[in-house]
Amino acid sequence: MEKVNVLGAGMTKFDKYLNRSLSFLGQEALSNALADSGIDISKIEAAYVGNAMAGAILGQESIRGQVVLSGTELEGLPVYNVENACASGSTAFHLAWMSIASGMYDVVLALGVEKLFHKDKMKTFNAFRGSTNVEALHSFPGKGNNDAQSMFMDVYAQEAREHMNKYGTTIETIAQVAVKNSFNGSLNPYAQYQQAKSLGEVMNSRMISDPIRLLMCSPIGDGAAAIILCSEKIAAQYSTKSIYVASSVVLSGKTKTSDDKDPAGTRTALKAYELAGIGANEVGVVEVHDGAAPGEIWAYEHLGLCSKGEGGNLLLSGETQIDGKIPVNPSGGLIAKGHPVGATGIAQIVELTWQMRGEARQRQIKNKPKVGLAYNNGGYLNGESAAISINILKS
Amino acid sequence: MEKVNVLGAGMTKFDKYLNRSLSFLGQEALSNALADSGIDISKIEAAYVGNAMAGAILGQESIRGQVVLSGTELEGLPVYNVENACASGSTAFHLAWMSIASGMYDVVLALGVEKLFHKDKMKTFNAFRGSTNVEALHSFPGKGNNDAQSMFMDVYAQEAREHMNKYGTTIETIAQVAVKNSFNGSLNPYAQYQQAKSLGEVMNSRMISDPIRLLMCSPIGDGAAAIILCSEKIAAQYSTKSIYVASSVVLSGKTKTSDDKDPAGTRTALKAYELAGIGANEVGVVEVHDGAAPGEIWAYEHLGLCSKGEGGNLLLSGETQIDGKIPVNPSGGLIAKGHPVGATGIAQIVELTWQMRGEARQRQIKNKPKVGLAYNNGGYLNGESAAISINILKS
Repeated sequence: MEKVNVLGAGMTKFDKYLNRSLSFLGQEALSNALADSGIDISKIEAAYVGNAMAGAILGQESIRGQVVLSGTELEGLPVYNVENACASGSTAFHLAWMSIASGMYDVVLALGVEKLFHKDKMKTFNAFRGSTNVEALHSFPGKGNNDAQSMFMDVYAQEAREHMNKYGTTIETIAQVAVKNSFNGSLNPYAQYQQAKSLGEVMNSRMISDPIRLLMCSPIGDGAAAIILCSEKIAAQYSTKSIYVASSVVLSGKTKTSDDKDPAGTRTALKAYELAGIGANEVGVVEVHDGAAPGEIWAYEHLGLCSKGEGGNLLLSGETQIDGKIPVNPSGGLIAKGHPVGATGIAQIVELTWQMRGEARQRQIKNKPKVGLAYNNGGYLNGESAAISINILKS
Repeated sequence: MEKVNVLGAGMTKFDKYLNRSLSFLGQEALSNALADSGIDISKIEAAYVGNAMAGAILGQESIRGQVVLSGTELEGLPVYNVENACASGSTAFHLAWMSIASGMYDVVLALGVEKLFHKDKMKTFNAFRGSTNVEALHSFPGKGNNDAQSMFMDVYAQEAREHMNKYGTTIETIAQVAVKNSFNGSLNPYAQYQQAKSLGEVMNSRMISDPIRLLMCSPIGDGAAAIILCSEKIAAQYSTKSIYVASSVVLSGKTKTSDDKDPAGTRTALKAYELAGIGANEVGVVEVHDGAAPGEIWAYEHLGLCSKGEGGNLLLSGETQIDGKIPVNPSGGLIAKGHPVGATGIAQIVELTWQMRGEARQRQIKNKPKVGLAYNNGGYLNGESAAISINILKS
């Protein structure tokens, strides 16, 4: 297979953009990635566009990518519209990667874009239903059946309680994820929230789904992120700061059994490490899916950054802070940078790219990391994430 | 690139299935394709699932493929959810093809599934809006802006009037598409409508959007279709009736200008022929996207089966009938076989497979064709189809 290079990375600030269209946001991210790459737009041969919620919120289904790219020079190209709930962006990236790896194309765009804010808030809240099995909503934990707003927070809450019961993790430890990530977000001009929060502020914020409180949750947000991928031949012509995709894996959850020892996150991580030919100890920077704070702790365990049950202790050790041994979510993660669903997975890769090039300014990790990993997951089905995607970059 | 083989093909009858779920229909098509292939389900490594309308009609967004495959042995695999309006199925097929061509996988599933019937008919009618630019509905021809039901029929009607004015094509000629396809459908046990219609019946049916009448339109329908693709290595073990993908192309429409000489259908066809290394004169069986009857006539022209403006005459010559020189829509096409949107593009390939193997029973084309072509298109943006997909099979 062809070696696949990250030629350009760009994103919008994640924010509330009631008066900007999906295409405005998507094209801003595209422009930023193009400027970063130095390549002309006419060289792009195909576009993979991830979006999860425009159908439910805006009524824009089916040809989301064509609409977003309408009026640009990319009109007429193959446009692939990819959905995979909160992992839509990384799944679009994965298919874009495959298209270069296969030798099909030399230069492609992976774009993630989302507008979650809507004047009618119920449109946003109810949109999350569509990322579950709508014929089996009764199987949702907590009060999900009646309140789409917090369905996914109910899932995080249930799994947090299980982790607390089984391993003695405390809610204060979980809250420290939000403390760390809000601090990182305070250093990131692209983050939706740029204010560091104290443990007290997190623990005293409004209860959303016991034990999950408001400041432990990723917010509603709008935004877009774009990556331009290219073959080795093209990279040699354009890039002096080459970063390439060492492995790209997408899997789905299986129906969870009570003695489940094989969570989808772990399966995906093992495969991603195997294909990249590395172990967890070689990773120098990680972006994970902290849809709510406990998600980051499970991610440590799924990724093998620590053993099962030790996620809370790894966090408390400080090693996942920006100045730690294995920084996680230096961007601020979903909690602080924000979570415009379809954009999230690609924004994670934008952050890895900047960190690995040494371009992350105030939040730059010392000694530019040589290996970066992005862990994106989404949807909920039969007790697990419906989709998991892990991408590993190397420089 | 690896040679990509069609190992198995299967579909449900297209019909009205108010009491069957999306997953019931999808799994029936999967079972039929598996039985046809002779391969065990455990050999499938990934699933590409096309669906266009489950979001708008059923509220099922984002993880449609995982929901459809839930409870099967395919749980846990990479599942790629692909949207491209009425071309969703063929776009899923294209990505499935790419994954084998690239050497990434040896056996994959391409599945298209749709449920359009709903107790609340307005849900179905309004769902079609999502396949246009919802921020620019005012640009729609005819009364589309006020009546989502007939938006796409307004497009067909406008282009039909243009063809009639420019080339002298008559509405009776266009109606003959429906006569031919309803006859073919009468021979197809998988068709939603299995009754041959006379010219008088078509011309006297209710006016939908002048000059398009009811029996010239594809109906609302439910159903699923599945293809199992495999590498040459696997095909050698399982298949004694090898059919392979000679080319697979997906493109998007460009903003149409008044002097447009380069419609997306023609661009796509030229590329598909070039990659397959054949000319239009070598094709032995064709399935095209007769969303309404005039669509088949334009398809003749885009595909180079005749020159521009000659589509009506080609039809009247009888050469596109099952016993003609270049049979088109032997399945009955969208008009008679039906058009469960996400399933359509894959059902076209199922029909080609059966025809090329000599398994199409009553509607079998004499002298099994050695080359088959499927032309699927969908959505509407800036005056053109938003998505066009052409797949060419060879035996």
